[in-house]
Amino acid sequence: MYNIGIDLGGTNIVVGVVDKNNNIIGKGERKTNIPRPAENIFEDMYAAALDALDQAGVSMKDVEYVGLGTPGAVEPETGVITYSANLFFHNVPAKKLLEERFGKMAFVGNDANCAAFGEYIAGAGKFARDMIAVTLGTGVGGGIIMDEKLVVGFNGAAGEIGHMVIQVDGEHCNCGRSGCWESYASATALIRMTNALREKGNDPILEKVIAAEGEVNAKVAYAAAREGSEQCAQLCETYAKYVATGIVNLINMLQPEVICIGGGVSHEGEALLEPVKRYIAQQSYTRDNSEEMQTVIQLAKLGNDAGIIGAALLHKNG
Amino acid sequence: MYNIGIDLGGTNIVVGVVDKNNNIIGKGERKTNIPRPAENIFEDMYAAALDALDQAGVSMKDVEYVGLGTPGAVEPETGVITYSANLFFHNVPAKKLLEERFGKMAFVGNDANCAAFGEYIAGAGKFARDMIAVTLGTGVGGGIIMDEKLVVGFNGAAGEIGHMVIQVDGEHCNCGRSGCWESYASATALIRMTNALREKGNDPILEKVIAAEGEVNAKVAYAAAREGSEQCAQLCETYAKYVATGIVNLINMLQPEVICIGGGVSHEGEALLEPVKRYIAQQSYTRDNSEEMQTVIQLAKLGNDAGIIGAALLHKNG
Repeated sequence: MYNIGIDLGGTNIVVGVVDKNNNIIGKGERKTNIPRPAENIFEDMYAAALDALDQAGVSMKDVEYVGLGTPGAVEPETGVITYSANLFFHNVPAKKLLEERFGKMAFVGNDANCAAFGEYIAGAGKFARDMIAVTLGTGVGGGIIMDEKLVVGFNGAAGEIGHMVIQVDGEHCNCGRSGCWESYASATALIRMTNALREKGNDPILEKVIAAEGEVNAKVAYAAAREGSEQCAQLCETYAKYVATGIVNLINMLQPEVICIGGGVSHEGEALLEPVKRYIAQQSYTRDNSEEMQTVIQLAKLGNDAGIIGAALLHKNG
Repeated sequence: MYNIGIDLGGTNIVVGVVDKNNNIIGKGERKTNIPRPAENIFEDMYAAALDALDQAGVSMKDVEYVGLGTPGAVEPETGVITYSANLFFHNVPAKKLLEERFGKMAFVGNDANCAAFGEYIAGAGKFARDMIAVTLGTGVGGGIIMDEKLVVGFNGAAGEIGHMVIQVDGEHCNCGRSGCWESYASATALIRMTNALREKGNDPILEKVIAAEGEVNAKVAYAAAREGSEQCAQLCETYAKYVATGIVNLINMLQPEVICIGGGVSHEGEALLEPVKRYIAQQSYTRDNSEEMQTVIQLAKLGNDAGIIGAALLHKNG
């Protein structure tokens, strides 16, 4: 049997057919085209699913479950999307709509939580009991799996790890707080730090990298550090310290077996991981534990497929 | 049937007999007298339990389970206390020692987690699915219950919510980090803030309260604020902001149904709760949710008995 996973985003609907080895064997895609009525969006999910099945060479009668990862908060018992700012959704009965259209039992979760669950079941957390996924992208997102279950909270809104303040009265965050982890550890924050360094106007290596790249993005500081810029090396060190600060907070509170780091900045690999692990080894409450009693820090493995796979496997969250 | 709960501290061993309504009906006590061999401490637990049974008028054959709350980290599967700095314990097989001595099935947990579990089952979290206990004492401690289970982490060391950094490079903390929540929201931090205000030397109301109290403790700033000190009112407001910062972090990450606040400072009651709730209403990620979809903030109910009751009920931690 197969499962269907749907990754609903503000721009695209991506649907995958997932086999029993947790591999995506067919994909379909539609534009989300918001704003429009939820029913129409769900109709396009079904159309994209038919494409995915076609590509996979699988029939709908071989599908067992359907899972959906959506932006916003999902009411855990009913599968109602209570609110999604991105999609202009208010109280959309997603589970019911999916079950009616597909004729299969359906499961609905937050998109970041689904991606975390995918990494947990099929990627970086495959052999772990608990895992926290940390995504360093435009923002800092993630998902928490403790004791084999996604932590969604009593209202389905848990997992906003990026909106933990690590600097009281610090940088303003879009969420309304000041000093959120996201404002220091996201790709956006890295770009802000890079621009601030540029304003000092004395890093020719950085300027050369930016000229070649054509823009200031989250990669140029790491690239300039590799080319020998001391100031950029220091900037990357400071950035890693911010990343590690939030990770140690998570470790001290929740002690997951694995923390996996994904998102755009994670492509820096060891250049990011080495200083992050160094800070954690200095600062975590359990730093004197034996190694097997300490959280393993590693890179995410599934990339953008994590959301589809996690959605397809939501029925295992139980 | 009855259960025995043991609260093992650095100074005292307190044992209670807990009935099926979760009330303590008899108590016994011994000095911990550290450092001494774990076996002797466990022998005194048994002696204190006999006193407690005697006071309760209950026989050991009416006891079903024994539970122990201990400082330090407990290996979840085996009930071994892997390490406790306070007690000088290293790999003490607590579950095994208790089961041999009492002839009953025994359960072992961290003391702060046991107190949180007691509040969850029998106090502030009685009707909730998830709860986080926050204790504002010498430090900031607590425990996390998600989906009816204590979150202990894969290594048994979870729950150190006080050691989440809220101010990068802030006040030094005993744990080795800088800027921990504990360093801003504990009674100790409140005393430090009060002393800093005194050094300005221009608050006669505060000085009068301190003279009457005979010392600078965590109560004098609140007392002076009640007597009309504007500066102390401002100090209490700042303190509440620090308390709320960590609480909003917990809400955004975990969305528990209830957060209960205990420990010495919680005796200020509404004077503490009102500004804390106000900050949460301004800052939490789910502040626009309907009221029943938002975390309830309330005071802890069981005081020092929470640890004994929680230990006695550890068998319910499914």
